[in-house]
Amino acid sequence: MSELRQDPTTKAWVILAPERAKRPQQRQKMRRAEELPSWDPTCPFCLGNEDQTPAEVFRLPVVDKGSPWEVRVVPNRFAALEPGGDGTMIEEERLFRKRAGIGAHEVIIETPSHNTPMALMTYEQVEKVLIAYQERYNTLKKNGHIKFITIFKNHGWASGTSLVHPHSQLVATPIVAPYYHREFDIAHGYYVDMGRCLYCDLLAQELEKAERIVAHTEQFVVLHPYASRAPYETWIIPQMHCASFGLFPDMYLAELARVLKDTLFCLYQRLDNPAFNLMIDSTITEDEEDPYYHWHIRIIPRQTTIAGFEMGSGIYINTTLPEETAVLMRECVSSLCEVGRISVEPEA
Amino acid sequence: MSELRQDPTTKAWVILAPERAKRPQQRQKMRRAEELPSWDPTCPFCLGNEDQTPAEVFRLPVVDKGSPWEVRVVPNRFAALEPGGDGTMIEEERLFRKRAGIGAHEVIIETPSHNTPMALMTYEQVEKVLIAYQERYNTLKKNGHIKFITIFKNHGWASGTSLVHPHSQLVATPIVAPYYHREFDIAHGYYVDMGRCLYCDLLAQELEKAERIVAHTEQFVVLHPYASRAPYETWIIPQMHCASFGLFPDMYLAELARVLKDTLFCLYQRLDNPAFNLMIDSTITEDEEDPYYHWHIRIIPRQTTIAGFEMGSGIYINTTLPEETAVLMRECVSSLCEVGRISVEPEA
Repeated sequence: MSELRQDPTTKAWVILAPERAKRPQQRQKMRRAEELPSWDPTCPFCLGNEDQTPAEVFRLPVVDKGSPWEVRVVPNRFAALEPGGDGTMIEEERLFRKRAGIGAHEVIIETPSHNTPMALMTYEQVEKVLIAYQERYNTLKKNGHIKFITIFKNHGWASGTSLVHPHSQLVATPIVAPYYHREFDIAHGYYVDMGRCLYCDLLAQELEKAERIVAHTEQFVVLHPYASRAPYETWIIPQMHCASFGLFPDMYLAELARVLKDTLFCLYQRLDNPAFNLMIDSTITEDEEDPYYHWHIRIIPRQTTIAGFEMGSGIYINTTLPEETAVLMRECVSSLCEVGRISVEPEA
Repeated sequence: MSELRQDPTTKAWVILAPERAKRPQQRQKMRRAEELPSWDPTCPFCLGNEDQTPAEVFRLPVVDKGSPWEVRVVPNRFAALEPGGDGTMIEEERLFRKRAGIGAHEVIIETPSHNTPMALMTYEQVEKVLIAYQERYNTLKKNGHIKFITIFKNHGWASGTSLVHPHSQLVATPIVAPYYHREFDIAHGYYVDMGRCLYCDLLAQELEKAERIVAHTEQFVVLHPYASRAPYETWIIPQMHCASFGLFPDMYLAELARVLKDTLFCLYQRLDNPAFNLMIDSTITEDEEDPYYHWHIRIIPRQTTIAGFEMGSGIYINTTLPEETAVLMRECVSSLCEVGRISVEPEA
């Protein structure tokens, strides 16, 4: 079992998980989909190799166990956190605090196809992945020890992934991560001050000038944020105010799948299959019904290395302006628009 | 001129510096020193190429301008921040805040030798680099617009460096970086609560059991921190309580040079010339005389990529225990010890 330790000087928690050192690494250059085989006999996520992963906790299609799977969710074989036990117990030795590494660390295998990244999937397949995300989110939040659930995706070696087969991960922790703690505090403070949601106000302000808007559909806005940390950082924000990804109406997941796939496809085209990290930012499990937060998706291409200054200070240096990259993304999105896939209609 | 923009959802500042996109990149595999030439005609930091950098703001030896230089400090040609102008002016447009990119961004060229990294320098040369650090720190802090000065070093491509010639950087900002803001708040809160310095207490506790101590000299303790974010993360903490690197007595810089060089040499040996980031954590310029903070050096080897989870959440997953890596580092340090370079004497 791993352990969580808190740095007394920053109050940040670190997961110490020596077991993870043993995980396999497929360290080859990231290739475009057409250069990869659709099936790799050595890949634990490929069809026929299901016995190389721990037992499924979810699959699609749900009903017919005999049918070939379309999406599988399995515990991470080299889990940073594991279920069971008391996540609230803290051992203190004067300045040092630690707790057992309770929680969950799961892998969402997005497709049986070894060489179909999300940017190239069908809308239907992306929707199935989103259904799996939401299903696991809503199942895990029922565990009282779990305070916080992050769903994320690392694509490409520069993003820190160790396997090429399209997959996402879910980590559920008994603590709130420091980055999110700050984000929640700020959103909560704004709500207390203004009586309104910070993200709803942000959307309204962004839509007025539409300088950084990439696309705008009935339910979603895609934009390059004002203080983008990296070139082509892209946020997908639902227009409907909703604190938790778990509570977002599932009838909108089909539209989200279209928006997400088209966004990733445009990044794939413009940046030639870039490495990226994708994160779903959602509120803490006990505050799902509270009005202050607004879930959204962040996509951060990893074309530059995070250097000492960024790492040490938390100040990022970005060499491009979001107003300029948004224009380039809009051009790409517009070409999809013509075939009716996504609409770009900045307001006013 | 670049600009600083604040993300309204995290209050983090980003430096938008399109000029930096033009900087040169020497993207070859990081080679061991013996595989590199000692002089590279295309390197802007090599002897004879001084006209490829902006004019020196500091040099050693100081006095004889005709003598060959040993250390040079120059403004970064692709500076993220520039001096002059009013750093306190904030332009607000409802949720969005920006200010001019006022400050300084300098390069410390550590040696004329293209292929002598700090791990392989003489103690005397490392001391000269430290003298240059302190000199620039103390000069820039006099600028009233500058609130915070970070000195850091990126070694190896995986650390985000773009040039191989041994160099460090200094960034002086009109804002306090969010990571440090948190660290200062915590140290200040501890001082208010306990009437003591958090770092002095941390050193006392670490020295008692000595599980994570790598080396211990008259003035410095080298340790692997309790909640290490990465394998072989190493801190060098002065035993003397002092908030600011700028106010640290210069008579101790020779000892710091020995400790720093030997620490980097052991990392070089054990991890085969790893990429790393080195940061000097020092208080904000206006609080130099205040008792709550304690300057120190952090060295973070970059053997794994920072992935989506770490980047999104601020929770790092480390697959090694600092107690185990400290033992391995101690073995290496002890071998130096025999030749009298560093002493390891954990207390009782």
